[in-house]
Amino acid sequence: MLKEQIIQSLNAVREQKPLVVNITNYVVMNNTANALLAVGASPIMAHSQQEMAEMMSFAGALVINIGTLDSVWTPRMSFAVEQANNNDKVVVLDPVGCGASQLRTETSRQIAASANKLIIRSNASEIIALAGEQAQSKGVDALDSSDAALGAAQFLVSEYGANVVISGATDYVVTKEQVVKLNNGHEMMPFVTGMGCTLTALTGAFAAAGDETGLAAAAVLGVVGEIAAEKSRGPGSLQMNLLDELYLLDENALLERLKLS
Amino acid sequence: MLKEQIIQSLNAVREQKPLVVNITNYVVMNNTANALLAVGASPIMAHSQQEMAEMMSFAGALVINIGTLDSVWTPRMSFAVEQANNNDKVVVLDPVGCGASQLRTETSRQIAASANKLIIRSNASEIIALAGEQAQSKGVDALDSSDAALGAAQFLVSEYGANVVISGATDYVVTKEQVVKLNNGHEMMPFVTGMGCTLTALTGAFAAAGDETGLAAAAVLGVVGEIAAEKSRGPGSLQMNLLDELYLLDENALLERLKLS
Amino acid sequence: MLKEQIIQSLNAVREQKPLVVNITNYVVMNNTANALLAVGASPIMAHSQQEMAEMMSFAGALVINIGTLDSVWTPRMSFAVEQANNNDKVVVLDPVGCGASQLRTETSRQIAASANKLIIRSNASEIIALAGEQAQSKGVDALDSSDAALGAAQFLVSEYGANVVISGATDYVVTKEQVVKLNNGHEMMPFVTGMGCTLTALTGAFAAAGDETGLAAAAVLGVVGEIAAEKSRGPGSLQMNLLDELYLLDENALLERLKLS
Repeated sequence: MLKEQIIQSLNAVREQKPLVVNITNYVVMNNTANALLAVGASPIMAHSQQEMAEMMSFAGALVINIGTLDSVWTPRMSFAVEQANNNDKVVVLDPVGCGASQLRTETSRQIAASANKLIIRSNASEIIALAGEQAQSKGVDALDSSDAALGAAQFLVSEYGANVVISGATDYVVTKEQVVKLNNGHEMMPFVTGMGCTLTALTGAFAAAGDETGLAAAAVLGVVGEIAAEKSRGPGSLQMNLLDELYLLDENALLERLKLS
Repeated sequence: MLKEQIIQSLNAVREQKPLVVNITNYVVMNNTANALLAVGASPIMAHSQQEMAEMMSFAGALVINIGTLDSVWTPRMSFAVEQANNNDKVVVLDPVGCGASQLRTETSRQIAASANKLIIRSNASEIIALAGEQAQSKGVDALDSSDAALGAAQFLVSEYGANVVISGATDYVVTKEQVVKLNNGHEMMPFVTGMGCTLTALTGAFAAAGDETGLAAAAVLGVVGEIAAEKSRGPGSLQMNLLDELYLLDENALLERLKLS
Repeated sequence: MLKEQIIQSLNAVREQKPLVVNITNYVVMNNTANALLAVGASPIMAHSQQEMAEMMSFAGALVINIGTLDSVWTPRMSFAVEQANNNDKVVVLDPVGCGASQLRTETSRQIAASANKLIIRSNASEIIALAGEQAQSKGVDALDSSDAALGAAQFLVSEYGANVVISGATDYVVTKEQVVKLNNGHEMMPFVTGMGCTLTALTGAFAAAGDETGLAAAAVLGVVGEIAAEKSRGPGSLQMNLLDELYLLDENALLERLKLS
């Protein structure tokens, strides 16, 4: 039944071609725009407060990625979240580097606290840092494992009313109702910069087309990454093949490869 | 005769290697710089008002692309247009998202009004929005068709003394003297982010080397996109092949494939 | 013996996975992050003064690239250099366009003067401009040749206590103790935007892992560029293959191809 929902979500994105407004980091603006186009969505990279109210009135979702944040960009992010709230749109937050600096941790928490409809997409370390002392941290060694962040993710679900996607070798989609485990993907994927940011952007597209859990995007990118990596010699060709395979993705291939539990 | 001019323009770019100053959006800075290098030109991505007078004194043309504009960047654009005017250089304007927000529409009009030598390169919706009520709009359904923007383009030619390139499934190059129709390109091209921005950047290179109509750049990118798309599985490989084919483009292939009327 | 040191440096990068903080230009943020990942390092693109002290406390090196500088970014660069000094970390400076505007020349000199441990990676023209009148310039025609910049590089070594990498058809690594000449690379490399910036970023990774001369990074990119270019039709495929080959680079291939004297 989950698998059917994922297929339906993919078809919904391709049919609706939802507009996704992205306030994201400089590093990944090009490749996340390309990933949104390849999956069938329509990206807008816009950040000016002079146009954000208009943008959010016709956009389907808002993606906030703090990867290259500073004091000029954070007010833009806060303002955009207000506009998303005003228009009842989902905000997808990528708290890049949360825990690596106070600025990132605090900014992530402020954005998470202010969004009415929220999906958090992040890796295990960032999820644990975002949850902070109140979550059960299992120490530094466990930071690379998605399992170690499950408690923190459940704290974030309860604290912010968010759905949470933990990505890593294993992905988890954590909502109030359930925890879904995904075992697709490929070990070469972390060698392409912004692969997580790509998942965040796709999560925005799927949310705009109706999947507000984060599941369908994680399923699609896991399978597509796997297919693309099998055809790639290294991270350069993986980045190229990923866009081709997102564009070509067939629902039977998706169904056959999906490993979820 | 037009075809001969296009070949001559391509050779002029390759021989002169003109410097093109780009104030463009964050999303396409990398791929438009690569396109300019691949066609034989020399890109400079510079925006600071502290160096723009020097830059425009030795550059061949100025490209202004408002894709990720804000109140920090718009004064830089205006200042750069003044420096281009002072040095009698062509300004190529890409009014990305014109019509999607007041900010974009007004900024586009201000830049168009202030440039002495102007080429506007845009899609049909943006051309119609830039022309505004004074142009004959044919409604929302027609926005995707370049034909629908011909009236608006002719208005812009007369209002701003500009040459106008409308790109889409069919491209039009509209000048005071003539309308040229181009039927090259490929339906996969819109799946690569910033393909229009790439045309805008190339238009700057060809303008710097003497073609101030916009025709040669549109012809070259239409043909190169067609050749590249035929070798591509999807938008990832198209982006890569586009740069290879721009670099390799042979004038006989260009002549054989060109469909203009 | 130099060759053995280069191999050891490559292995050190791959084992230590050093964190490299990059304040770089918008054009190359994506591809330099990808190059750092492909060689085995861990890139952070961060620039905010609110987090730079924290970042430099755990980073291995700082890369400063002035390619798209302005009055907002230059104070960030100066502040980051102070933090690098406080933590005894190497600063790698890429003075992009030094000589093309007063702003670039002066900013480059200020950064060079303020860094305690410094590697300068640049092309011949920029090295000559950075050294200024005090260096022996051989005029405009010689600007493209690395040989012409050797005197200027030696001036910079003495003036700033820096190690200097001049890249071009021939690369030179100039330190107080010696001048090493490298003859790898491929003529297609300058057709990929930011190839020099990629070398600068890699120089940061190797410095963080112990090679503060700049030699190992120049050797690795020269050989990898050569291998990648031989498999490429043009600059689009070169950019892709470069990342694949950096990721796959075998130490025997490196040893066999290295041409240094």
